[in-house]
Amino acid sequence: MRAFSRDFQDDLRDLMRWRRDVRRFRADPVDEALLAEALGAFSLAPSVGLSEPWRLIRVDGAPARAAALANFEAANADALKGYSGDKAARYAGLKLSGMREAPVQLAVFSDEETDKGAGLGRATMPEMLRYSVVSALMLFWLAARARGLGVEWVSILHPDRLARDLDAPADWRLVAYLCIGWPEDNTETPELERLGWEDRAPRLEVLTR
Amino acid sequence: MRAFSRDFQDDLRDLMRWRRDVRRFRADPVDEALLAEALGAFSLAPSVGLSEPWRLIRVDGAPARAAALANFEAANADALKGYSGDKAARYAGLKLSGMREAPVQLAVFSDEETDKGAGLGRATMPEMLRYSVVSALMLFWLAARARGLGVEWVSILHPDRLARDLDAPADWRLVAYLCIGWPEDNTETPELERLGWEDRAPRLEVLTR
Repeated sequence: MRAFSRDFQDDLRDLMRWRRDVRRFRADPVDEALLAEALGAFSLAPSVGLSEPWRLIRVDGAPARAAALANFEAANADALKGYSGDKAARYAGLKLSGMREAPVQLAVFSDEETDKGAGLGRATMPEMLRYSVVSALMLFWLAARARGLGVEWVSILHPDRLARDLDAPADWRLVAYLCIGWPEDNTETPELERLGWEDRAPRLEVLTR
Repeated sequence: MRAFSRDFQDDLRDLMRWRRDVRRFRADPVDEALLAEALGAFSLAPSVGLSEPWRLIRVDGAPARAAALANFEAANADALKGYSGDKAARYAGLKLSGMREAPVQLAVFSDEETDKGAGLGRATMPEMLRYSVVSALMLFWLAARARGLGVEWVSILHPDRLARDLDAPADWRLVAYLCIGWPEDNTETPELERLGWEDRAPRLEVLTR
């Protein structure tokens, strides 16, 4: 089999450390060939029964962008109401979306009714279709970051409304909304950690049975 | 920021191509330090609101292994009943689990009630907790494969029954069951493709709105 060097293993760890959820993007456009290279990672992802259920809509036009941004702003305003005191002030101070700036924006769906794979592996866990889509977008995220591109996963959205506004087929379910572009700043530390929202766990715990 | 070379980008693509869902394992044990290195990737994963909801149970003891295997065998027998004719014969001929052989087996859960992250990013999409867990296990999968280890994701299981049999806390939801070990054979082609179950799509399609 193809072997990978210790240097590669170390670089891969660095890539994972530098991946980050990027919320601040420069206005520079993203080269289409570079984007296509990174998107190629989708097709290398595992999928349940080889169903390849990932479906992508690139959100480019002004009406689609406006609908997505309004969706985020409404969901974010609702979310703020769920906090009070210091936590509300902190939440209000967070920048939770790069949707105003990111040059490339992708809505990522799961095709919940795909025939591909003939149902294998998802009889007892139908969520495997969505999980396959998440697997694919993680590979894309790493491939993008290896090329210097930042990716943000926005989840403060009403998914059904966004699917309708983007005129997605009825069987598609929104899994993620991705903002993509050149990061304005770079850090190994998650923004939520730097701004005091939450800390990272000191270590991974594993129970044994 | 940390930059990554063209060689690294190419190697990363190779790693994704060679990742595979491995269902045939050699009996050789897995070195614990190597496994711990690969498991370190979990802590580098993105998680909604920095919630880090991944929870791991290592399935080691004979009773736990037997319960997991019986669970798979029951779910697999039920799944077979859903096919007929040629598709049933093909399904019956697939090896869909390495649970009898894999030296390391991990049940991966999402803590659905974690306070960590204070709910940020999951008010409208509570499934983000499970998606965070999938993100983390994908990083682990790549880190393992970069070290030559094969990983299999088994989803032909009754998740609630497995959680009970493993005495998992009530708020944990099973996301994946992973078999880990040294692959018996190595190929770039998914087993489901080689055995004629399903083909890979020729290319990724992206709609635009």
